[in-house]
Amino acid sequence: MTQSEWDLHFIKLAIARATKGVKNEEGGPFGAVIVKDNKIVGEGNNLVTSTNDPTAHAEVVAIRNACKNVNSFQLDGCTIYTSCEPCPMCLGAIYWARPSRIVYACTKQDAAKIDFDDQFIYDEIELPIPQRKIPTVQVGREEGLSVFRLWAEKEDKTEY
Amino acid sequence: MTQSEWDLHFIKLAIARATKGVKNEEGGPFGAVIVKDNKIVGEGNNLVTSTNDPTAHAEVVAIRNACKNVNSFQLDGCTIYTSCEPCPMCLGAIYWARPSRIVYACTKQDAAKIDFDDQFIYDEIELPIPQRKIPTVQVGREEGLSVFRLWAEKEDKTEY
Repeated sequence: MTQSEWDLHFIKLAIARATKGVKNEEGGPFGAVIVKDNKIVGEGNNLVTSTNDPTAHAEVVAIRNACKNVNSFQLDGCTIYTSCEPCPMCLGAIYWARPSRIVYACTKQDAAKIDFDDQFIYDEIELPIPQRKIPTVQVGREEGLSVFRLWAEKEDKTEY
Repeated sequence: MTQSEWDLHFIKLAIARATKGVKNEEGGPFGAVIVKDNKIVGEGNNLVTSTNDPTAHAEVVAIRNACKNVNSFQLDGCTIYTSCEPCPMCLGAIYWARPSRIVYACTKQDAAKIDFDDQFIYDEIELPIPQRKIPTVQVGREEGLSVFRLWAEKEDKTEY
């Protein structure tokens, strides 16, 4: 199969996870699969409402599942297939997991039309802290820096 | 105690979680506590390397813990205290969890100085998809939209 054919194959599996999740009342209509060398290494669908976990978006669930399966906190050489363009939380999670490619089906505009409005969060992230909707204040920086020094001076740490 | 005194009290507890995490080799030097009515309802520290979970930042761990404890996917009326300004993933998670306030100690510039460079992700999120470092393509939108329709037409769904 060509890469395009593989992409369509795996995105359909991500979408199938989304469908299953909706039918089983597990959460919102989103699914993801993570693939390495054309084999699935992780998968997930939105579990927010069924597990009371606002971070349990499809991509986050799939990343956690894949990392467990490959026994690493990095997803080198992997492609993440997601039924919808990632929200800022999931995009951040993807950057931290460092897969090689992202393939998505629906856009964030499509998601907004069914009342999943990620754009609000995209807009907030770009604002300076004093202009954001959630009041945010800085306290205790000096105390906080002491832990950063502890880390900087630690010799046997595992970096990521 | 005044709000400022409470804030200093709880931010010190978040920083103490960070210190504990470094000393126990659980992950990076970051901690968070979540407080409602001046009582802790959730806490966490970075567990990325010890659990092979790139999403296990302090704020995400604390949000998952707090949501479990309050039995809800929303953190109404809560303040999240974090030892460092949240990365985009954590800021996204915070917006989805909808606490009332954020209190942080160190800045993202402080974090960059010890090689935790969130700015890269902040910069990427603002770029149009074709300009981002991780190659990203769209495939199967029509198939994806069918799940969105399924969701839109579902009558007994739990929205979030």
